[in-house]
Amino acid sequence: MCLYDTMYYFYPEQRNEFLVLASTFLCCMKDYEKFKQLVLQGATLYMPQLSLDCVIFGFHEGQLKVLLLKMRNLQEWALPGGFIYRQEALEVAASRILKERTGLDNIFLQQFHIFSDPTRSDTSKAIHHFSFADLSIDSSHWLAQRFISVGFYALVDFTRVTPQADELTDTCQWYDLENIPPLMMDHRHILDKALETLRIQLNYQPIGMSLMPEQFTMPELQKLYETILGVTLDRRNFQRKILGYHILKRREVRRTGVAHKSPYLYSFDEKQYQQALQDGLHKW
Amino acid sequence: MCLYDTMYYFYPEQRNEFLVLASTFLCCMKDYEKFKQLVLQGATLYMPQLSLDCVIFGFHEGQLKVLLLKMRNLQEWALPGGFIYRQEALEVAASRILKERTGLDNIFLQQFHIFSDPTRSDTSKAIHHFSFADLSIDSSHWLAQRFISVGFYALVDFTRVTPQADELTDTCQWYDLENIPPLMMDHRHILDKALETLRIQLNYQPIGMSLMPEQFTMPELQKLYETILGVTLDRRNFQRKILGYHILKRREVRRTGVAHKSPYLYSFDEKQYQQALQDGLHKW
Repeated sequence: MCLYDTMYYFYPEQRNEFLVLASTFLCCMKDYEKFKQLVLQGATLYMPQLSLDCVIFGFHEGQLKVLLLKMRNLQEWALPGGFIYRQEALEVAASRILKERTGLDNIFLQQFHIFSDPTRSDTSKAIHHFSFADLSIDSSHWLAQRFISVGFYALVDFTRVTPQADELTDTCQWYDLENIPPLMMDHRHILDKALETLRIQLNYQPIGMSLMPEQFTMPELQKLYETILGVTLDRRNFQRKILGYHILKRREVRRTGVAHKSPYLYSFDEKQYQQALQDGLHKW
Repeated sequence: MCLYDTMYYFYPEQRNEFLVLASTFLCCMKDYEKFKQLVLQGATLYMPQLSLDCVIFGFHEGQLKVLLLKMRNLQEWALPGGFIYRQEALEVAASRILKERTGLDNIFLQQFHIFSDPTRSDTSKAIHHFSFADLSIDSSHWLAQRFISVGFYALVDFTRVTPQADELTDTCQWYDLENIPPLMMDHRHILDKALETLRIQLNYQPIGMSLMPEQFTMPELQKLYETILGVTLDRRNFQRKILGYHILKRREVRRTGVAHKSPYLYSFDEKQYQQALQDGLHKW
């Protein structure tokens, strides 16, 4: 199963194809060639011993969610990640990797920490997972080195993300923050650090605007703040403070079809929001 | 002058020794061997294509200051920086480099950004500066590669720093933030980014405690906040807010020997400060 695992690792979206080996022989051969190229030419293509991992946050029905890839057989999930081309800036690499692995484009993306514990990469695992058949990988191989990883976090409007059934289903999946499965390597630590950054940057980055849909009610926005901060907030106090920043526009229409009194709908005033963030929401 | 420049680059503290060549022949030979070892063995000793740069802030007499090293002949100054050993965490490397290059130990140190513009390293300059006599360096040499640099900022209590005349004088010097000389490569950008981080983290990191002396007056603390934020603050408003956080202890004694009414002296209450930072000074 080593070939399968390895190809799955790099091409999780082809899982179903791999499983139906007979009918996808040609397809697999093409992917195998692609993988072989990575193993053999990665050392000249990519920056050595440097990778990046992306924590992609979404918010839906009162839940903060994270997009994960399944590492089959390992029973472990992983953050979407990859390598940096020899002449590529990290931000460009992060955008490219997100696009390649999730189909998402033009999203809010920030580097937040670099993870460099010398024991974070398990080189023996790498040798096991990347070796197969006619590709022998030993401890001197570029994939079997210590890797330092740059953590990026991304914020997406969950409602605008349409997981592509043919590419993402079964392989790329949202998990509620409260229900994250075991993650490979130090990915849980990377996720926790991203969340900590989100808490701190709530007043300095357009986090609300990036995660909320175009229109939302005040209780929905409060729920986002409560989820990120991990606390319960007083309704009236929250409303007073958030309206005091002058970053919200109240819409003409109200939310209809809900059980209680129709609540007002709000949108972020992008220009005011960016200006407020630049000044710092909490002025001295 | 190429040998001199190069040795000066790595051993700025030995400048005077280098200049009196006759009397320090043995010393220079020893340093040359050390340098030669770096050039020849660096590729096996250090993580490839990765460096780190430190922005060291101090605060004195109402001025925010930055510690810089002189790059002689180049007419450019530089942030203290260096390389990361093959099995070293970045934080350990940053502490080691700061200790080696400035003599400072046990200081507040935070990674804040990774600088990865592919054009930031000028490889032709590196080839010029690291080549001499019997050490030929070409474009394939490890020092002539693209380097990605991790930025750290450090906060020190200026009054506790005693520049060692024999090691640091003339080579390692504080500069007022308002009067920074031209810096090499993208070091000015790194410095600006560190300052931006300081502004944002003022409410989340023990920045005041790390930069201020043990005891200080309220106007002195206000000046620090004003300098970091780049604004003028209302005296009464500042005092009300900062006292409202319950992170300061008023001392029994007052500052004496000043022209005006003796002002109260304050210290940070370290335990309360750390707790307040953990909660976030600006609660929702």
